[in-house]
Amino acid sequence: MSSKIRLGIIGGGGDSLIGVLHRIASFMNDNYQIVGAVFNPVWEENIGFAKQIGINTSRIYPDFDTFIEKETALPTSERIQVVSVLTPNFLHFPMAKKLIENGFHVICEKPMTTTYEEAEILQKTLAKTNTVFAVTYTYTGYPMVRQMREMIKNNEIGEIQKVDIQYYQGWINPIIHDKKLRNTVWRLDPKKGGISCCVGDIGTHAFNMAEYLTGLEIKSILADLNYLYEDNTLDIDGTILVRFSENVKGVLRTSQIATGEENGLQVKIYGTKGGLKWEQENPNYLQVLSEDKPLQIYKPGHSYNSELSLNGTKLPPGHPEGIFDSMANIYLGVAKAIRNEPYNSGEFPVMNDGVRGMKFIEQCVASHKNGNSWVQL
Amino acid sequence: MSSKIRLGIIGGGGDSLIGVLHRIASFMNDNYQIVGAVFNPVWEENIGFAKQIGINTSRIYPDFDTFIEKETALPTSERIQVVSVLTPNFLHFPMAKKLIENGFHVICEKPMTTTYEEAEILQKTLAKTNTVFAVTYTYTGYPMVRQMREMIKNNEIGEIQKVDIQYYQGWINPIIHDKKLRNTVWRLDPKKGGISCCVGDIGTHAFNMAEYLTGLEIKSILADLNYLYEDNTLDIDGTILVRFSENVKGVLRTSQIATGEENGLQVKIYGTKGGLKWEQENPNYLQVLSEDKPLQIYKPGHSYNSELSLNGTKLPPGHPEGIFDSMANIYLGVAKAIRNEPYNSGEFPVMNDGVRGMKFIEQCVASHKNGNSWVQL
Amino acid sequence: MSSKIRLGIIGGGGDSLIGVLHRIASFMNDNYQIVGAVFNPVWEENIGFAKQIGINTSRIYPDFDTFIEKETALPTSERIQVVSVLTPNFLHFPMAKKLIENGFHVICEKPMTTTYEEAEILQKTLAKTNTVFAVTYTYTGYPMVRQMREMIKNNEIGEIQKVDIQYYQGWINPIIHDKKLRNTVWRLDPKKGGISCCVGDIGTHAFNMAEYLTGLEIKSILADLNYLYEDNTLDIDGTILVRFSENVKGVLRTSQIATGEENGLQVKIYGTKGGLKWEQENPNYLQVLSEDKPLQIYKPGHSYNSELSLNGTKLPPGHPEGIFDSMANIYLGVAKAIRNEPYNSGEFPVMNDGVRGMKFIEQCVASHKNGNSWVQL
Amino acid sequence: MSSKIRLGIIGGGGDSLIGVLHRIASFMNDNYQIVGAVFNPVWEENIGFAKQIGINTSRIYPDFDTFIEKETALPTSERIQVVSVLTPNFLHFPMAKKLIENGFHVICEKPMTTTYEEAEILQKTLAKTNTVFAVTYTYTGYPMVRQMREMIKNNEIGEIQKVDIQYYQGWINPIIHDKKLRNTVWRLDPKKGGISCCVGDIGTHAFNMAEYLTGLEIKSILADLNYLYEDNTLDIDGTILVRFSENVKGVLRTSQIATGEENGLQVKIYGTKGGLKWEQENPNYLQVLSEDKPLQIYKPGHSYNSELSLNGTKLPPGHPEGIFDSMANIYLGVAKAIRNEPYNSGEFPVMNDGVRGMKFIEQCVASHKNGNSWVQL
Repeated sequence: MSSKIRLGIIGGGGDSLIGVLHRIASFMNDNYQIVGAVFNPVWEENIGFAKQIGINTSRIYPDFDTFIEKETALPTSERIQVVSVLTPNFLHFPMAKKLIENGFHVICEKPMTTTYEEAEILQKTLAKTNTVFAVTYTYTGYPMVRQMREMIKNNEIGEIQKVDIQYYQGWINPIIHDKKLRNTVWRLDPKKGGISCCVGDIGTHAFNMAEYLTGLEIKSILADLNYLYEDNTLDIDGTILVRFSENVKGVLRTSQIATGEENGLQVKIYGTKGGLKWEQENPNYLQVLSEDKPLQIYKPGHSYNSELSLNGTKLPPGHPEGIFDSMANIYLGVAKAIRNEPYNSGEFPVMNDGVRGMKFIEQCVASHKNGNSWVQL
Repeated sequence: MSSKIRLGIIGGGGDSLIGVLHRIASFMNDNYQIVGAVFNPVWEENIGFAKQIGINTSRIYPDFDTFIEKETALPTSERIQVVSVLTPNFLHFPMAKKLIENGFHVICEKPMTTTYEEAEILQKTLAKTNTVFAVTYTYTGYPMVRQMREMIKNNEIGEIQKVDIQYYQGWINPIIHDKKLRNTVWRLDPKKGGISCCVGDIGTHAFNMAEYLTGLEIKSILADLNYLYEDNTLDIDGTILVRFSENVKGVLRTSQIATGEENGLQVKIYGTKGGLKWEQENPNYLQVLSEDKPLQIYKPGHSYNSELSLNGTKLPPGHPEGIFDSMANIYLGVAKAIRNEPYNSGEFPVMNDGVRGMKFIEQCVASHKNGNSWVQL
Repeated sequence: MSSKIRLGIIGGGGDSLIGVLHRIASFMNDNYQIVGAVFNPVWEENIGFAKQIGINTSRIYPDFDTFIEKETALPTSERIQVVSVLTPNFLHFPMAKKLIENGFHVICEKPMTTTYEEAEILQKTLAKTNTVFAVTYTYTGYPMVRQMREMIKNNEIGEIQKVDIQYYQGWINPIIHDKKLRNTVWRLDPKKGGISCCVGDIGTHAFNMAEYLTGLEIKSILADLNYLYEDNTLDIDGTILVRFSENVKGVLRTSQIATGEENGLQVKIYGTKGGLKWEQENPNYLQVLSEDKPLQIYKPGHSYNSELSLNGTKLPPGHPEGIFDSMANIYLGVAKAIRNEPYNSGEFPVMNDGVRGMKFIEQCVASHKNGNSWVQL
Repeated sequence: MSSKIRLGIIGGGGDSLIGVLHRIASFMNDNYQIVGAVFNPVWEENIGFAKQIGINTSRIYPDFDTFIEKETALPTSERIQVVSVLTPNFLHFPMAKKLIENGFHVICEKPMTTTYEEAEILQKTLAKTNTVFAVTYTYTGYPMVRQMREMIKNNEIGEIQKVDIQYYQGWINPIIHDKKLRNTVWRLDPKKGGISCCVGDIGTHAFNMAEYLTGLEIKSILADLNYLYEDNTLDIDGTILVRFSENVKGVLRTSQIATGEENGLQVKIYGTKGGLKWEQENPNYLQVLSEDKPLQIYKPGHSYNSELSLNGTKLPPGHPEGIFDSMANIYLGVAKAIRNEPYNSGEFPVMNDGVRGMKFIEQCVASHKNGNSWVQL
């Protein structure tokens, strides 16, 4: 009877924040119903969490392999259609790969994989299918981010000539200066966090935003990372010079030691005709600069916005929506794709965004280790 | 199996904005499941909407009376526990009354009734029961609004000496100057809108905010309303002088002809030790003023906030939550009450808030019609 | 040799803030030279101050009468042309009157007089002469204030339908609650401060701003003042309902007990086509609201501004000017008038602004004492 | 009779903006009197300007050499004490040198010279004298900039670990894309503008701010500049990675093609205990970040500010001062130095600031031309 898309969740149980974010996002536009899950590898916690959030426990599976086995055995009309992968980073690749191979659509948290090599394999795996695959660069779902993308596409600020994107947080500051403490944080452990902490976790958002907004590819980068202490092996801060072409340059600035910053993703893009500025912590205000007219502030929900932007606003202007709504907009786009309804480019980040992100991370570290030299992307 | 609270919805179908707001709010904290509804008096639209949003149609009823009849016939363990009343204003009273009388908890949209008389009857009806009754003054759910309440309660700004609350919108401007148009809008039709347009719709929010935040009762008011045209019989703008006591004064300012304003609810409260300022359109910033210290900006999710405030934040600082989250916080409080879990005063607006609101509306109009004279509240 | 206007100063010596403000304002556009003064009634302080600030002491006079006597005895080509009256309020009237009668132009601090009766006498005195007379409502000199005036004059926001002006300060809070202290402050002493403290000192700015910006006269008012303590005889807070005509209404809000507020003059004006918002503490940003276009932020110095506004900006956009520049713009207008150069209405506040201000103060107190009734203006 | 310091001006006539800025700054604190000048090499314009601004013409000289000759011939008690050098950049060096050699104190506009070599010579010249020498890095005069310096000095944000300073303007955008136009602008002509346009004009402000605020020296830099067109030989945009020490890093970002930006100097500095953020266009608000307390906004004139900051505020809090006041604070510091009164480090930028600036400019260009390599400073 229900026309809702059958959604499965892997990970995201307990007090996982990413779990809440995805769950609410899936609810928001009445498109999805969570029908199965492996919230946690520990059975008691898994089943307990399902009960706690009121999910029917009949399709809560003990582990990922059982999930695959049991669900694929179900008739198509009952089988889970799409799976959100919210597990620790190193599990994204094997799970996403197996899900694709078994015909599930996938909504994968970022970083998509732990290496560029894995990302390429995943891309090839996907290429053979008709599977919908989304990587949740959450911030691309904000209405004013989408409005920027459309304004740039429509040449409203002319040819891009400068891109400056910041992602500053401060949460590692109280950890990094304490030798004992910094050796206990999983993100600073290369075995768990991969080859990068700061660039991998947030720099990749800045990178994705740069390419998502401009519609251009970054061709080369020069990274200067900071580790602060010799015994700390993963970067916690970095400035990355970027080139879209010989004369179209930019800078990505990331930090986890910008003490007191919360989640300071900020965008500044300048073209031959104007400029755009936006801040994640105050997402409903988009500054549009020009040379000879007053500064304009665009806000969500107004008819002057593009379809891609309006698509992501549920209430009239003046009713602030936030990050749950942003993620929900990505889920909305995925729902359209799964249902074979028309949707616009930009409604959700795709496999290629995930692949580019992995390459970016690896090349940042390579550039830095090679004496801050230019490397290709 | 599910521990979710069984929720029924009356109204809120089709493209109702209030419907979306309540539905998402009910999902957000995993507490409720919508199990029955009368979304629309037209059956096709009712059932169609249920299918569209993926609700099991077995308990979609053709009308309110059938809803009551069928649900009360169910065993307690299956019966809907709480009903959200999202119908046109004039139906709030009879429906809420019947729901209370039949043992349902009620979440009622504002204005709670169309007259103060009805409000008093409803209050008496409720007094004989153990029913949980909430009026959705949505803005009381914002974390920083709750933080203001707690700071005032904890004497952080001292004795209140001045209260200034604004609620400015501009949406009636393009309507009011066109004689034909202004005679077609339901809010300007006394048969549908009651005795007041602006004060009734938004002034009452300002009033509720004043009492919610200060914990004080407004004792008397003097209202100057504006109707702009002789053939317009409902106020579209008004300034209301208020007194909490002889020397504790304030002003509530409301307008629907503040051209270009969207949803400009703004709070300024001053005490003997400091001041508080907050704006709904940018809800995650609370200004705390003092005489000899730097201005402080409080933001949600930090440990320096009160429990009542923190209770309403799902993600870490820097991840902006918005109006859906605000309403969800009210639903969260109601869930605790229904489950007989402990909760704080202020987690949801109660019957008395609705009653006070109705009295306020009637007395504003009375004051204005009586030559802008002082009236008791 | 110098083409500078010969300026005299009465008052403003020592660490007088108003003295600094006027002195710098007179310098800023290279129009004036201070050639004579009575900075202080105590001779040592008078002459000492002149030396301290490097003024030639030959025309520092011991008192106002000597100033008049000696200056009028000088040939026209040497005589002081314009006098800034910066003395305590009760001296404004007798000094300004005598200056006018002796052919001096006058720049008079506000309040222009201590009673409306005096103001009327001064107005009649002036009417018989060709004297330039300015009242220094300082805030009218800000470029963005002037831009508002011109936009309204040019019908850019249509017919005015709502005016809301705030002037909140908090400086009396730490005084008023201490009985001893509050009896020692001159502004709270009716013998020195006149019949009003808050309305007289800052409410009158709000009133002047309302009339200056809209070009309309306020016809009637209803004031609710606050004195907080029985032994305090002058208002320290007040809300004043105003009517420009039957249906064009507004509110002026003033306080000196808005704890933590510094100098919070804020303007909101709404018309049939748009709205304007401005704040004194951040004077270089003017918000221009409309119904269907993005919010616009006007800033000083851009060619899109009016001549009256541009006239008051000395540096290119992005170089913030402040309150000294605002006062300097008034001095600039007065210089033009003295030199018989063309100037625009609005370049400096005139006698009538001072007269209206005095009437406003008296009628506010009258309205309040008469049970918050409507009084004519 | 006058205790004012005798000031001479070289350059700054006609509609020179820098002329207005210095002139007003010299007036603001009643310390200086302009007694002589060469405003313009064309005699008619020189003398005409002196008359226009009301300066006694007896010491207006036809050229710089005559200025030196005639002034040095005057008795010490009449002779000009300090000279403001406001001429085109290439004249700063020879004039400043000759002034120093002849015993004049000097207030020199930036860039202090056109080459680092010249700067070193000037420094040596000065070293043999007791002359006061100031370079007008104007922005160091803002009260909140000074407050940042003092807070850092007092360890309020702990050890510095990240510095990010932006200076974005957009004024070259409408010029650079027009081949004809870009060949006519003096700043883009290496003969007139030196070896750098953007870094030389505004990057050097960012650099000075970094060292002024932190009290640290930048040890090495890596610059990526942008010229946009092959026939354009001077940089118009650049990002410069900087290192204060091996692990204390930062970035300076400068542009003149950030379309729509006016004068966007912005500071972000993070330490082990907190962060500081400030923007030139809105100079009276200083953000102080910490990990576990609310964001604080410092404003000028409050007693919680340092002496160095309070020293630069003339009016009470809430009365916005701007860029003229900032420059005036530098003149105030210079006046103290000339009078041998005590003053704090930081009251005006000194010779070494000018020398460092020139080295920075040259090394930026060197780093860029050498394939974006690290160079020492």
